[in-house]
Amino acid sequence: MSEILIKNGKVILFKNNDVILDKKDILIENDTIIKIENKIDEKGEYYVIDAKNRIIMPGLINTHAHIPMSIFRETTEGYKLYDWLNKVIWPIEDKLTDEEVYYASMLSFIEMIATGTTCINDQYFFSKAIRKAAEDTRVRTVLTRTIQDIDGKDKMNERIKDFIELYETRNRNDSLITYTVAPHALYTCSGECLSEVAKLAEKYNLPVHVHFLESIDEIEDIKQKHGEEAIYVLKKYFNNVHTILAHCVKLDDKDIEILKGMDCGIAHNPVSNLRLGCKIADITKYLDNGINVALGTDGQGSGSNLDMIETMKIACLMQGGIHENEKRITAKDVIKMATINGAKLLKLDNEIGSIEIGKKADIIILDMEEKLDNITTLPNLNEISNIVYNINGRNVVTTIINGNILMEERKIKNLDLELVLNQCNKVVKEIKEALN
Amino acid sequence: MSEILIKNGKVILFKNNDVILDKKDILIENDTIIKIENKIDEKGEYYVIDAKNRIIMPGLINTHAHIPMSIFRETTEGYKLYDWLNKVIWPIEDKLTDEEVYYASMLSFIEMIATGTTCINDQYFFSKAIRKAAEDTRVRTVLTRTIQDIDGKDKMNERIKDFIELYETRNRNDSLITYTVAPHALYTCSGECLSEVAKLAEKYNLPVHVHFLESIDEIEDIKQKHGEEAIYVLKKYFNNVHTILAHCVKLDDKDIEILKGMDCGIAHNPVSNLRLGCKIADITKYLDNGINVALGTDGQGSGSNLDMIETMKIACLMQGGIHENEKRITAKDVIKMATINGAKLLKLDNEIGSIEIGKKADIIILDMEEKLDNITTLPNLNEISNIVYNINGRNVVTTIINGNILMEERKIKNLDLELVLNQCNKVVKEIKEALN
Repeated sequence: MSEILIKNGKVILFKNNDVILDKKDILIENDTIIKIENKIDEKGEYYVIDAKNRIIMPGLINTHAHIPMSIFRETTEGYKLYDWLNKVIWPIEDKLTDEEVYYASMLSFIEMIATGTTCINDQYFFSKAIRKAAEDTRVRTVLTRTIQDIDGKDKMNERIKDFIELYETRNRNDSLITYTVAPHALYTCSGECLSEVAKLAEKYNLPVHVHFLESIDEIEDIKQKHGEEAIYVLKKYFNNVHTILAHCVKLDDKDIEILKGMDCGIAHNPVSNLRLGCKIADITKYLDNGINVALGTDGQGSGSNLDMIETMKIACLMQGGIHENEKRITAKDVIKMATINGAKLLKLDNEIGSIEIGKKADIIILDMEEKLDNITTLPNLNEISNIVYNINGRNVVTTIINGNILMEERKIKNLDLELVLNQCNKVVKEIKEALN
Repeated sequence: MSEILIKNGKVILFKNNDVILDKKDILIENDTIIKIENKIDEKGEYYVIDAKNRIIMPGLINTHAHIPMSIFRETTEGYKLYDWLNKVIWPIEDKLTDEEVYYASMLSFIEMIATGTTCINDQYFFSKAIRKAAEDTRVRTVLTRTIQDIDGKDKMNERIKDFIELYETRNRNDSLITYTVAPHALYTCSGECLSEVAKLAEKYNLPVHVHFLESIDEIEDIKQKHGEEAIYVLKKYFNNVHTILAHCVKLDDKDIEILKGMDCGIAHNPVSNLRLGCKIADITKYLDNGINVALGTDGQGSGSNLDMIETMKIACLMQGGIHENEKRITAKDVIKMATINGAKLLKLDNEIGSIEIGKKADIIILDMEEKLDNITTLPNLNEISNIVYNINGRNVVTTIINGNILMEERKIKNLDLELVLNQCNKVVKEIKEALN
């Protein structure tokens, strides 16, 4: 039995819809939080972490990403979404090997651990390679194999077979890896394809994870392809399953009304949306309408990085770009979006998303000491605001997932960044050539 | 004679309108850059800085700030611009002492040095206290004493007297501190006040620094106050002087046409604009129209912090919030905005804003090593994009202003952060009480 005692820190807790900071000690037994008290006495067998001058918060949950895309970081400058996919991403992806995807994924998992993300919802292919990286790093991962049929039914069937093979070969003892069924998007999937996906989701009782109304071009493309508006296509196929909608930049009032009646929620990816010129999703309005909104980074190709703390800041700021002189989401709201809302969106809120007795120990510790590296927080008048607006992933000193300490005092355990980077070198060289 | 040799780094240079990275050694003699060559041999008398794996760039120029507002950081959450000023800022400012302003300014100057800002354009009062802090830290500062007469002509006359006293007592041998004449804004200054300001600017041959069309409320307020639209008021009083316009969120096409014909430029403050719900300034359009746009943070009260690298990122991203699928400013554009455009805006481009022989040595060095703290940049496919999108002020390791090394390897020289924070304690306590 392993027990970890985190002492002397201030803990971010959710109480009566509020976000509060309270000085508490936390005791973890194996994978679970078993005590949260004002003072827990040290015992010989505890592994003790001193969190003095630090803030302890639930691990960040990244609800939309493409894990191996670390290798495409900073390749999007100057491209529109469709052009970038066609000219840069897809040609390279066509030639990727399992080994390359494994190491590109390792690089992303190290980035997550180093910046405080404890759970990630992926949508990609080469999924067994990603799974191996998830298993080797022990980061909580929601996995899938993206399905689409824009290139024909045979390809679709291969992908479905791939997905089933992935799911059927899962390790039933490994609670860290769960699954969704993921149609790429309504503009890349026929009705038949969406129908197959819905059947899989119902059969396996899994959530659906789909890109939805990310950019303006999509609206017309979907109407052309399916003969009706996107929202009706969505409702037709996925009314009976829990659906994770990535993006939702382009929802109109009617769309919002319909989504309110469905079992779904939104993965908002502010950096990617802005970077690709998709404009700003009105998440203030979505939340006001009772729709669950969580945060994501998207792949690093469009989202730049996996730093969820920076993503919180940009999510908050952006709402000031569309809500002139109006009430909009606060620092407290966005902390919930990055944690408990994410857990709800992934249907994991019984297990993670908050620091509560009985929940899994997915916990990060932030360095908020009064020192030069934290000068942008001083004087510290509002710790909650400072977390959102004035620190970033580099302030995460310790990352615990499922009771395992994966990083402590900014030392990552058992993973070798240099080796991982070296293994990525060949494909990185190819990408550089494609860009020139 | 002191000579500094910076070796083995890659230097950001501006060539034929492009931003390039080139491996160069740089030799500084006293306050001036005297050599930029592929290889400069070490000599015994040189102080050598090894910049291997690092990027050397012109110091960042913050073209709009209120230096002592460090103490108001994170007090704006949930307020509208006018409410925040009325309920939080102005009542506390009324009771500030010179000593408090001095230490609050010291805190901001330390923040600048630690995050790579080498020149700042201030608009505040208690200006002698700020000047003392600038002198004590040796950060290049454009100083003023804000003038307005919303509270009557007597108050205006006091402020003008204050400004003249400030300017006349300047140290003519200290080239690090220069001056503007600064009417607060057109909604807080009568025509008489603006006219007095314009006379001062002409008499002393100084630029004017004014808040202009920051928020939507201002448009109607100015029309009410002056009987005509803001742009005509501006032109009427400041057509013959170089004018630094802070914000310009609300320019229409006619405004842009008129500004094109004036000797002026814009200090764009993206974080502050978003934080206060002012929406997004269309700087892509302003730049396309040939108007000079530089970057600023505004005071930390609304702008959160003085990290100009983070400000570059948010400036770029925001344009994707209004330019759907359209060409907009790039990482290279924003690097120019944060450096050479800033120098032009402050009329200091003969001296600073770029790394060129004969210019003052205002230089920063960025750590871009392949290591865990820089995981968000890896693999480093595009160094220019990584500077804008994936690092922040904490990557600045060395800050040189006017040939003085103020920070080296993240050690600030001759300044005591702990002492400065302690000296701010009393006023910080009062602000906390005002917030509760």
